[in-house]
Amino acid sequence: MSSGSRLDPFVELYAARTEGMTASEIRALFAVANRPEIINMGGGSPYVSALPLELVAEMAAKVIAERGAQALQYMGGQGDERLRELVCGVMALEGITAGADDVIITVGSQQALDIIARIFLDPGDVVVAEAPSYVGALGAFAQYQAEVVHVAMDDDGLLPEELRISLERLERQGRRPKFLYTVPNYQNPAGVTLSRERREEIIELCARHDLLIVEDNPYGLLGFEGPPQPALRALTDEGIIYLGSFSKIFSSGIRVGWVVAPPGVKEKLIMAAEATTLCPVALSQFLAAEFLSNHPWEKQVEVFRDLYRTRRDACLEALETFFPPGASWTRPSGGFYVWVTLPEGIDAKAMLPRAIQGRVAYVPGTGFYADGQGRRNLRLSYSLPEPERIREAIRRLAAVVTDELEITAAVRGSEA
Amino acid sequence: MSSGSRLDPFVELYAARTEGMTASEIRALFAVANRPEIINMGGGSPYVSALPLELVAEMAAKVIAERGAQALQYMGGQGDERLRELVCGVMALEGITAGADDVIITVGSQQALDIIARIFLDPGDVVVAEAPSYVGALGAFAQYQAEVVHVAMDDDGLLPEELRISLERLERQGRRPKFLYTVPNYQNPAGVTLSRERREEIIELCARHDLLIVEDNPYGLLGFEGPPQPALRALTDEGIIYLGSFSKIFSSGIRVGWVVAPPGVKEKLIMAAEATTLCPVALSQFLAAEFLSNHPWEKQVEVFRDLYRTRRDACLEALETFFPPGASWTRPSGGFYVWVTLPEGIDAKAMLPRAIQGRVAYVPGTGFYADGQGRRNLRLSYSLPEPERIREAIRRLAAVVTDELEITAAVRGSEA
Repeated sequence: MSSGSRLDPFVELYAARTEGMTASEIRALFAVANRPEIINMGGGSPYVSALPLELVAEMAAKVIAERGAQALQYMGGQGDERLRELVCGVMALEGITAGADDVIITVGSQQALDIIARIFLDPGDVVVAEAPSYVGALGAFAQYQAEVVHVAMDDDGLLPEELRISLERLERQGRRPKFLYTVPNYQNPAGVTLSRERREEIIELCARHDLLIVEDNPYGLLGFEGPPQPALRALTDEGIIYLGSFSKIFSSGIRVGWVVAPPGVKEKLIMAAEATTLCPVALSQFLAAEFLSNHPWEKQVEVFRDLYRTRRDACLEALETFFPPGASWTRPSGGFYVWVTLPEGIDAKAMLPRAIQGRVAYVPGTGFYADGQGRRNLRLSYSLPEPERIREAIRRLAAVVTDELEITAAVRGSEA
Repeated sequence: MSSGSRLDPFVELYAARTEGMTASEIRALFAVANRPEIINMGGGSPYVSALPLELVAEMAAKVIAERGAQALQYMGGQGDERLRELVCGVMALEGITAGADDVIITVGSQQALDIIARIFLDPGDVVVAEAPSYVGALGAFAQYQAEVVHVAMDDDGLLPEELRISLERLERQGRRPKFLYTVPNYQNPAGVTLSRERREEIIELCARHDLLIVEDNPYGLLGFEGPPQPALRALTDEGIIYLGSFSKIFSSGIRVGWVVAPPGVKEKLIMAAEATTLCPVALSQFLAAEFLSNHPWEKQVEVFRDLYRTRRDACLEALETFFPPGASWTRPSGGFYVWVTLPEGIDAKAMLPRAIQGRVAYVPGTGFYADGQGRRNLRLSYSLPEPERIREAIRRLAAVVTDELEITAAVRGSEA
């Protein structure tokens, strides 16, 4: 028990699941990283300032003035039917065929993760996920007291052979995992993308093991190099729960995501969603529908894509220029993130306070693992700062890493 | 197992908690009750058409045009600090003293109920609640596999003596309840209000039994007869978690509610909220803040109050005029609901299809109990239909009840 708990008169009342509740690495960071002198490469925030704000303002006004009686009111738990139809058009760009009735609108993809965990996970259940994996998903699974088994990736994403080995080991242990959680495109935090060939292999492998796939795809339309890969859900409609989001193609502050799920699962997800928020946000849904139907939204996605490509380039060039030998990093072909492996002997979490002092922030790698891996890793997000600021951030961070290396070498020298 | 589950290939994968998941009575109703020929006295929807929609449209446009970079972006899990300050001003109207740091903004009060259940309830835990109690709260508690012990009310709300007996019985059984869930003002569904005297008694009784109180107060400012009672949270700031909402004083479609909790509880609630939705809805929060700060919002609440008073009057007058002897009902001094007890022998749930046929809808009473009570009861909500429609709805419903009585009498006669 921490000393804080002695002051908390309710400490005996909390549920067992609260033992796994810890403030996320990102949240702890937010408290300081938003000071103006610090360049924040931590949060995965979209650059919403690239939106035509006057136009979005008009859309919101129109929606309220013309249909306020609906836009300001409760609605059904599955979400607005018109938006669900429009969302099918968005998914079609990644090869997905689905109908409005297959879709549930959620309060961002985080709610989708929460309700999926809720309907599938009993305490002690196993979820298979990439190593590393999205911190928000790990947080959701942890609150349902699940165990995450990580499977290694390389530059082409999840390794089918590693997945096969993990599934067979679990089978030998008599443990049936509830699902594979994967971010196939421009993965958060690793920035890598699952190759076309492996998509087929992983679908085939999961089918053979009767393993449900939860495909989380918020970044799919933000690829920098040619058309997107087909979604897993485009290659098969069996055994897949698909998650989409407006957070990165429009706005994260409206909290609108969606799930596509098989009928039985869908019904349970709606009941779980109703118990958590009654219904998704009507005003946000109407605004998203307006964005998709009366606005050249694909052009807007192109604007985002070009902007993030320029920032990715700035980030990779600066890493090449400033970072010391012994460090390595991924080269994302889309999305928001670069995953850095620091030179041996450096602990990214221990280094963070010194980085903050050096006026740059990142997310330490350990937050993206359920099992303590990632000490040498950190996630850089290039989505929010301007390219010049990114360059400066990497320069500052490289200086901190170089200092860290010298201290490590000096300590080793004195120990020898 | 239902025949549906045989078709669901995932049936073996669901978590134990899904066994308690059933579509709410209200949801089942929504599917048919929204047909135009039916007068829906079921849903507890606020009459948002009474808002100055053009003005709200301007507020939304202003918020996006002037501060879109924040309003369309993620934010901290505790919610916008400015809104949290403004919310303290709203609570002050009911005598509550709290600071912005004590407040968490949620995705409607339903999220508050969900995260409270999440941090306190292990499977099998006991929650004490009024009989009847809010269906959404019961749904949230059920998904955490808790047991609800109902305590009787009368026209002055929860009966302290009944509460004492229940708590002592639980104590003898060695079961420590996690909290008392109560809606003291214009209760949903019963429409009754806890008297001032009993507020003191219940606080005192709960303190003596070390029982946390969850005070859910969405209707507190919608009283028809003089100033509101002080909130329980106004009478003590110890051992109380307080829930407020914009759903009934502004808009339910923006999904903004709030919680005031003691420090240790607050920290856990924020972590639980982050795992479910990352953060509350930025755009909605900015709009709510705009409503509170640049708009005579208390005048708007007066508009709502007058409007609902007129509807309450129409509802009670029509019940008096049309309903057969043997039926009784509560006389709410605020809020949205009248709780009807049907003449003996009539089952409100069994009667519902015939009521729908008779072009009127309500919510059967059983949904408001965790233990099968409420067969003779139904909830009428007068918040949405115009007074003339309310009168017509009650006339139609009275005809259905009268038919039902005749059938019951005939069946009894033939049995005799």
